[in-house]
Amino acid sequence: MIAKYRFGSPFPTEATVVDLPCAQGSPAPFCAAEPEEGERRLGLHLSAEDIVYGLGEQPRGINKRGWIYRSWNTDDPIHTEGIPAMYGSHNFFVVCGEKPFGAFFDCAGRMTFDVGYTDPEELTVTAYEDFDLYIIRPDGARETAENQSDRTPAPVLFPVEDIVRQFRALIGQSYIPPKWGFGYAQSRWGYASEGDICEVADGYAEAELPLDAVYLDIDYMERYKDFTVDLSRYPDLKGLNAEMAARGIHLVPIVDAAVKVEDGYPVYEEGVEKGYFCKDAEGIPYVVGVWPGDSVLPDVLNADAREWFGSGYKFLLDMGIEGFWNDMNEPALFYGKKRLETAIEKTGEYKGKNIGDIGGFWKLSGLIGGLKNSDEDYNAFYHDTAVGRVCHGEVHNLYGYYMTRSAAEYFEKYAPDKRFLLFSRSSYIGMHRYGGIWTGDNCSWWSHILLNLKMLPSLNMCGFLYVGADLGGFGENTTEDLLLRWLALGVFTPLMRNHTTLGTRNQECYRFKNRKAFADVLSVRYAIFPYLYSEYVACALEGRMLFRPLSFAYPSDKRARGVEDQLLFGDSAMIAPVYEQNAKGRYVYLPERMKLVRMRGAADVSEEIWEAGDHFMEVEPGEVAFFLRPGKVMPLAADAAKAKNLASLDESKLVWLKFISEDTEYRLCRDEDGYRKSSLKDSFVRVVVKA
Amino acid sequence: MIAKYRFGSPFPTEATVVDLPCAQGSPAPFCAAEPEEGERRLGLHLSAEDIVYGLGEQPRGINKRGWIYRSWNTDDPIHTEGIPAMYGSHNFFVVCGEKPFGAFFDCAGRMTFDVGYTDPEELTVTAYEDFDLYIIRPDGARETAENQSDRTPAPVLFPVEDIVRQFRALIGQSYIPPKWGFGYAQSRWGYASEGDICEVADGYAEAELPLDAVYLDIDYMERYKDFTVDLSRYPDLKGLNAEMAARGIHLVPIVDAAVKVEDGYPVYEEGVEKGYFCKDAEGIPYVVGVWPGDSVLPDVLNADAREWFGSGYKFLLDMGIEGFWNDMNEPALFYGKKRLETAIEKTGEYKGKNIGDIGGFWKLSGLIGGLKNSDEDYNAFYHDTAVGRVCHGEVHNLYGYYMTRSAAEYFEKYAPDKRFLLFSRSSYIGMHRYGGIWTGDNCSWWSHILLNLKMLPSLNMCGFLYVGADLGGFGENTTEDLLLRWLALGVFTPLMRNHTTLGTRNQECYRFKNRKAFADVLSVRYAIFPYLYSEYVACALEGRMLFRPLSFAYPSDKRARGVEDQLLFGDSAMIAPVYEQNAKGRYVYLPERMKLVRMRGAADVSEEIWEAGDHFMEVEPGEVAFFLRPGKVMPLAADAAKAKNLASLDESKLVWLKFISEDTEYRLCRDEDGYRKSSLKDSFVRVVVKA
Repeated sequence: MIAKYRFGSPFPTEATVVDLPCAQGSPAPFCAAEPEEGERRLGLHLSAEDIVYGLGEQPRGINKRGWIYRSWNTDDPIHTEGIPAMYGSHNFFVVCGEKPFGAFFDCAGRMTFDVGYTDPEELTVTAYEDFDLYIIRPDGARETAENQSDRTPAPVLFPVEDIVRQFRALIGQSYIPPKWGFGYAQSRWGYASEGDICEVADGYAEAELPLDAVYLDIDYMERYKDFTVDLSRYPDLKGLNAEMAARGIHLVPIVDAAVKVEDGYPVYEEGVEKGYFCKDAEGIPYVVGVWPGDSVLPDVLNADAREWFGSGYKFLLDMGIEGFWNDMNEPALFYGKKRLETAIEKTGEYKGKNIGDIGGFWKLSGLIGGLKNSDEDYNAFYHDTAVGRVCHGEVHNLYGYYMTRSAAEYFEKYAPDKRFLLFSRSSYIGMHRYGGIWTGDNCSWWSHILLNLKMLPSLNMCGFLYVGADLGGFGENTTEDLLLRWLALGVFTPLMRNHTTLGTRNQECYRFKNRKAFADVLSVRYAIFPYLYSEYVACALEGRMLFRPLSFAYPSDKRARGVEDQLLFGDSAMIAPVYEQNAKGRYVYLPERMKLVRMRGAADVSEEIWEAGDHFMEVEPGEVAFFLRPGKVMPLAADAAKAKNLASLDESKLVWLKFISEDTEYRLCRDEDGYRKSSLKDSFVRVVVKA
Repeated sequence: MIAKYRFGSPFPTEATVVDLPCAQGSPAPFCAAEPEEGERRLGLHLSAEDIVYGLGEQPRGINKRGWIYRSWNTDDPIHTEGIPAMYGSHNFFVVCGEKPFGAFFDCAGRMTFDVGYTDPEELTVTAYEDFDLYIIRPDGARETAENQSDRTPAPVLFPVEDIVRQFRALIGQSYIPPKWGFGYAQSRWGYASEGDICEVADGYAEAELPLDAVYLDIDYMERYKDFTVDLSRYPDLKGLNAEMAARGIHLVPIVDAAVKVEDGYPVYEEGVEKGYFCKDAEGIPYVVGVWPGDSVLPDVLNADAREWFGSGYKFLLDMGIEGFWNDMNEPALFYGKKRLETAIEKTGEYKGKNIGDIGGFWKLSGLIGGLKNSDEDYNAFYHDTAVGRVCHGEVHNLYGYYMTRSAAEYFEKYAPDKRFLLFSRSSYIGMHRYGGIWTGDNCSWWSHILLNLKMLPSLNMCGFLYVGADLGGFGENTTEDLLLRWLALGVFTPLMRNHTTLGTRNQECYRFKNRKAFADVLSVRYAIFPYLYSEYVACALEGRMLFRPLSFAYPSDKRARGVEDQLLFGDSAMIAPVYEQNAKGRYVYLPERMKLVRMRGAADVSEEIWEAGDHFMEVEPGEVAFFLRPGKVMPLAADAAKAKNLASLDESKLVWLKFISEDTEYRLCRDEDGYRKSSLKDSFVRVVVKA
């Protein structure tokens, strides 16, 4: 049961796909809290045992209690516990207590969620723009045509899952990538040329490690100009792509939000001519600094401009490219051109003057130092939208969503029934229909394995199923053991990409000493692929979560409610990765008797039944350990150890992991094509697995 | 057995107190590794099961394997896993394997320790200046007059402990603070006036929470000038100190390394006149920017200057102050004056010019942005030492040590037999004889509870016994639960100080809702004080560690060797704090049968015997849980719940926690005076505890 409440005249985000009438009265369970000027505030009391789930891409726990979270899409690469905001805004949460409910604040602007930070017993939501609020109460187990495909019998849902399913029906079906998007991929900022790409592909091949894709970071562009190729580095990208395709490897180029200011550059000139860039109050394209230097921002909230920018991808699509990642679309700004000029001038005025006390120095150093991602810039340019001219600051959190929608809508025209790989750094709920996300510029920190894990269910709740972190860590230097342990979580995430930044240590798996361990971990990905794909597609079609907190399946188990480092993975499995340096293993809590599965590569699988309760589980680096739930089965590709990539994986030969006492049916996704949209619903086959 | 090897002509650090002859030949187990220009490099092979302990104040694990650590004292407030260097340089480690040994690189300059980072099986030490290397092999159980007081019988030591004890004898006895230095203390940058201090003292008193000290951050000084008081804020510091002393509360002012450049400021003028500040190549005092704005650095490596700077503390000592913390003594530099002037000029030259591509912007923003803690500055000024003029860059890591020594040596003159509280942010081995350290500007992050815990044994190994972290976190905003859980570790650390930075949320315990939980945790500190003090003093006198990894006591227990979140605390106890948000408890590994002690305040103690193995231990916020080892006892102050501070704690009435089957002797430190140095050795009494 969903009730919608409108506060003011919110900007239409198109986050939802169902148009509900607005209810009157106050949105119980919230009551109005004391606002400050320019904001609205709703509050509610939390009981001691209430758990708050959701909010998507945010730091801290699966249980969000005890911190204040901000929705303000920001390019901040230091993902600490105290990070003020991240790349996405996912304003949906569920309060799980005696009377569970979900709340979605559909607000294009800045918000904060104080979940027991100021007062441990109060949850206070503050919005700085108008919004629609959806309150979702559990319906109990439901069967509706929209969100239920042919899976039977429908499980009786724990209220929280029911709330999530209602929400997901409200916001529409999640993006499903082509099959190859589930393969293992290598990326790095700094592959300076065609030769580097070949070296990576060869490196993996020679080490007999699988590889489905190599990503192209901004290096491939001519001076960071969208929809160009630097011919001195990549003289024949189309040829390279074809060569790689023949080897079963996809090239996935990046596309950045901002467009370089440069006379003679067609994208810039055409956009200026048509008025398709964001403009200042005087109607002049607003110039900001990003990777290409002085740049302008496509006005993706303007339908015409969006269509125009999306058509830019044609340049790469025509080369045979089938996947893209959209970056810098918070949008990230290194400087606003006018403010930079002022800062230079003011800094220069200090010449020969005494800066006085240290306050003088802070002021001085803040002139240039304070330019990045500044509200002063975000509030100084405008969008021409269907509802008129809107200041960017009021709709900031939609930018990445609409940039990605721009690409997806063009793909739909370019090849209507084809699925392309597409994911974005910045996002808002609604974008989950058009693409996935990666969780941005993390670091090579052990704590980021756990952060990666904790975000998965939160993102799934908000519709983002195609998600993954930069495995091994983007910023700073990785270590062999960190990468190995992280990959052992990454084998389960839909996006499985090893990625790092310019200037860091080599991070390709074949560069490290313990080659066998890497081969083992990577081959597990290909072994579990039939399960991963079947579960993913079913979750997308049915509005379910691929990753769930333990409490969703074991709501009455108090200990399970507190587990923050294990997840249910699909319907059959529970994962519990090792995430500490030098650790020989980790503790694991079993809410019930389960079967421990250890995979040392795709071919070496051992099984052991463990009783409910607490265990210390030893796990070698290179080994992947997980649990099979009672009554469940999991299909594995029998010959996965031979797979060089998903194209070469023999999916016809399965072996079954099973923890069953009677014959059990599994609904397997047999999507031989791997690209078509239309055939997916009909690609499930029921397989009876013998006990 | 200690062998000393000399490489080049190292600067005499005075880290050691024993003058050993140099051995010839190569320092087995090291062999020379390929150096680059300007460095020396030694390497050794690590076996798979070798553990590397030590290195003092560094990030990551108790077991240092898998990362590269840098000795280069740096003011960096973002203590992530990848932090390049911290405030102290503690170049001592122990390789614990088949043939355990310790290695101390006595090097005043930059060093790196690659402990299996580049290659998981190689440990490579690189020094950028000359050094002495001490290799320490286990002697087996030893009895020597120097490092053994009257504790009997001497335990047969695990080789690692024996190595540590030899090392500690080499570097001399650790600092012992006055008794009150073990009391709970409140601090904040931002107590703007006398009134704020009184408010804190009253706040604690009214909430019936104990308090032994209030710290004065840089706010008390007149425009951040050392050895001054801002009379507009603190009109009568002496009077305030007396008033607080009457309430059993000590005031502990900060002293910063740098001295403000200001005509008419006696410290500056006298220092310039006598040539006591660090000078550039032309002999002109080198001007840097720190809190007071333009400043100069006392040349603490010059014996006369050191004596002179130490005498500055008299100003505060004469007011009755008995404790100090030395800060910014890496030394931290916000800018070098000349480089700032150049940066301003160069920035100004960009006026009206096109900065071109984004590289141009990085260059521009790096002009002012790159000034902080720059090697260009560290290499541009000099010290006048007993061995001649030395460039600061060559002896950088000694600065904080010698600044603190400067104070300690003056205290020795001021009141020869009196112990003062003294600790420092920056340090080097050798400083442990003169004062303690706090582990610098941490953050209000849950991960920093664990970082706090992990550094404790590493610092103890290197001689630093009086240590503690900013409880609740210095940077960013704390939460009630974080502070409570952190205090539950802090009750065990010798320095127990709640401290935070300017502009953060109020962090005094009485500001929070769950008053009872705070009262309970704090009172545990006073209850265990007789044990903490007895163990601390004995460890200092005998060169032992107060906090030990489990493997030190259970070397043959493989699981114990891997435990990174529990510590032995003194001879009798094992601690295992909760360090995760929203956690109801934590896992704990018991290498043997132990007694779980739960303290809900000083008066509410429950005990339970737990078997060896793995357990999930529930711990309420506000509760302190720890373990008593078999055969051990622990004295508690019976009436600790009544204590307002250590002065009011009745130490005569003890209750004993015990897990013994026969009568057991405990050596209790009965230091009634609490200040004298001379009487400490004789203050131990043997108490027989009945089974």
